[in-house]
Parts: sequence; C-alpha cells; structure tokens
Amino acid sequence: MAFLVFEGLDGSGKSSLMRVLESELSRRRVIYHHTREPGGTPLGEEIRKILLCKGMSNPVPRAELLLYQASRAQHVDEVIKPRLAKGEWVLSDRFSASSVAFQAGGRAISDQDVLTLNQFATAGLTPDLTILLDIPVEESRRRQAHRTAQTGEASDRIESEMDEFHERVRQSFLKQAAQDKKNWLVLDAYQSTEEMLSVLLKALKDRQWLGS
Amino acid sequence: MAFLVFEGLDGSGKSSLMRVLESELSRRRVIYHHTREPGGTPLGEEIRKILLCKGMSNPVPRAELLLYQASRAQHVDEVIKPRLAKGEWVLSDRFSASSVAFQAGGRAISDQDVLTLNQFATAGLTPDLTILLDIPVEESRRRQAHRTAQTGEASDRIESEMDEFHERVRQSFLKQAAQDKKNWLVLDAYQSTEEMLSVLLKALKDRQWLGS
Repeated sequence: MAFLVFEGLDGSGKSSLMRVLESELSRRRVIYHHTREPGGTPLGEEIRKILLCKGMSNPVPRAELLLYQASRAQHVDEVIKPRLAKGEWVLSDRFSASSVAFQAGGRAISDQDVLTLNQFATAGLTPDLTILLDIPVEESRRRQAHRTAQTGEASDRIESEMDEFHERVRQSFLKQAAQDKKNWLVLDAYQSTEEMLSVLLKALKDRQWLGS
Repeated sequence: MAFLVFEGLDGSGKSSLMRVLESELSRRRVIYHHTREPGGTPLGEEIRKILLCKGMSNPVPRAELLLYQASRAQHVDEVIKPRLAKGEWVLSDRFSASSVAFQAGGRAISDQDVLTLNQFATAGLTPDLTILLDIPVEESRRRQAHRTAQTGEASDRIESEMDEFHERVRQSFLKQAAQDKKNWLVLDAYQSTEEMLSVLLKALKDRQWLGS
C-alpha cells in the first residue's frame, strides 16, 4: 500500500490526475481510497463548510489553521490509518503540506507553529509521496476563470485571496519539495494529464510500489 | 478591567454566580461582557454545535481538542482582547483551563500538548482570575438530573461521559488551582449563590479591581 498526497494551486489539475491514476490502479486491481482535505469524514465535511464559505464567520488565521488540523486529526484516525492498515492505497487531495503552504506561507503564521500542529494532528503520519502539480499563479487564475464560466460555481473563500497570497503558497510548496526531494515529486502542470500520469507511474514503479 | 473565567463541572452553579456578579457590576456601573466557550462568536457557536451534539460526527480526542482551540482563537481575537482593550470586564463561562481538565484530564491527551495548544490559541492571553466552583461528581449528576427533569433538555455529548471521566476533570481543575493559587479562587459550590458571591466580591476588592 502507499499513501499518496496531491498538492498544488487550485486549477493545477489534481482531480484529473487522481482520476486517471485511479483508473490505472483499478486496471491493476489495486484497492485504493480517494479522499480529500479539508473533509474526508462526516466531521471533516462539516468543518470544510465552515472553512470555505464566505460568510459572517470568517475565521482569524489561528482559528483557520486549527480547524484544518481538526479535520486532519479525524481524517487520519477515522480513514487514512485504518485504510492503510488494511493494505489499501490512500490518495488524498491535499494534506499537511497544504497547511504549511496556506497558513505559514500564505497567512504568515510561523512555520514552526504549523509544523507542531501538523505533528499533533497527524500523530506523526506522513505521506509516502507528495505529488506537487506546479503552475504559476496567473495560469491557476486563468483555469479557475474558465471553470467558473463553465460551471457557474463561485470561487470559495481561499480562492478569493489576492495573487500575492497564492504566490507565497506556490513558493512554499516548491520550497517544501526542494527540502525533501525523496518524498516529493514535482510535476510541471502545464503538461497534459497523460504526460503527468506517465511521470507519476514511473515514480511509483521506481519505488516498486507498482510492477512494470 | 478584569478578565474573569468561571470553571467547574456542569451543575456547579457557574451561570447563577455569573448572573448575580453581573447584577452587582451593573449596580456599580462597571461595563462587562458575558461570554462562553465553546462559542462566544458566530464561528465559535457553529463549532459548539459540532462539539456538543451527539451524532455521527463524533470527534476523536485530538480533533475535539483542536475544535475547542479553534473556537478559542476566534474568541480571543474577535471578542476578549477588543473588549479588554476598551476597558471592559470580560466574564467567560469556561476558557483554557477547561481544555486541560477535559482533554488532558478527561481524555488523556498529554498536559504538554494541551498547554502548547492553549498557548497558540490564546496568543498568550491568560485570565486575571479563574474561579473554580467545586462540587463532587455525584452532586453534579444530581443537579443535572434535576435540571433535565425541570427543562426536559437532554444531556449533551460531554455531559454523557462516564463518572470516571468527570472525576478526572474535577481533579484536574483542583490541581490547576493548587499550582497557581494567586490566579485561582476555589469556591465550595455546596454554598448558596449569595455565599459564593460574597467570597468572590471580597477577592475582587482585595485585588482592588472593585472599590469597597
């Protein structure tokens, strides 16, 4: 089994890449569980609603970080650890690296505080591989605008932050990847989903988590 | 101004004591703000609903602690600090000592983890005085049963915990008070509300927060 986390700015193509990887895993009869943060559990989905809606309850940065971590603690205990213990793969759309990127990078809470809270919420669980889909902020914006035009969905509270915020988030992701190359895979998200899948499959085979 | 926190088991008489103290403060033309945890802000009240309802979203202990702390961070920034800065008194039904009592004492998360999270959520703000209304668990149970019979309100998720849980909570409160005598006032909550008020007023006058 493997615990894979997909990170990146909104519009970077995480969902599409997860979908094609999951098809490939199904073809190989690998049992996997698709999940996301914030969310992934009934409690986490309630917290997600509070976090992403634009309303009168806007959390201050410390409250926001604590809410993400509450969702994460539940996610780890109720979903991720039990699935891994059964030998399943777990594929999560965002995990602890997002807190470093959005709350330390974006909101300027200290890295140390975010890392301490990550450690507490995860009870020390770390992904086997974090896959960063990297695109510039302007490309993320362009794709979000395109999606909004297609679906009519308004942007959420985090998506509505300024470009400077998202630039700090992107740089934090790149820095985390550079500091832990063994456990991160950075993909150029200008590539097509199929191109990214091919690089990802190679990485999974190199680690012998998948046969050739 | 003063930041006063009222702690104790459910049924210990916090609400009644706060009510009579508030009458006395009004009589003296002291401006005060009454608040509570979890809650005290729109965000906190949403979190309170998640924490106290008995449902399918039962949080694991680490998630529960993080939710209380999220409510607290919002409470400190949005309500407590601004009110104190205006020179008002703030009277809160529960604060950080409850996390030590319920989550470290009750749930057996380490004291150190709870204290670290308290420090982060409060940004270092501590009460000027924490007033502990101390009663044995069996008396707390007796009073809750009486209230349930009168109001028809069912017990919440925390009230429904076993007696052993509440005994650990009580002992934690007493230990915290013993370790920080200068900033705690322990009241025997078998006394009448008026008797407790009189001890409390003396303590406030001794500290010269109130005139005689």
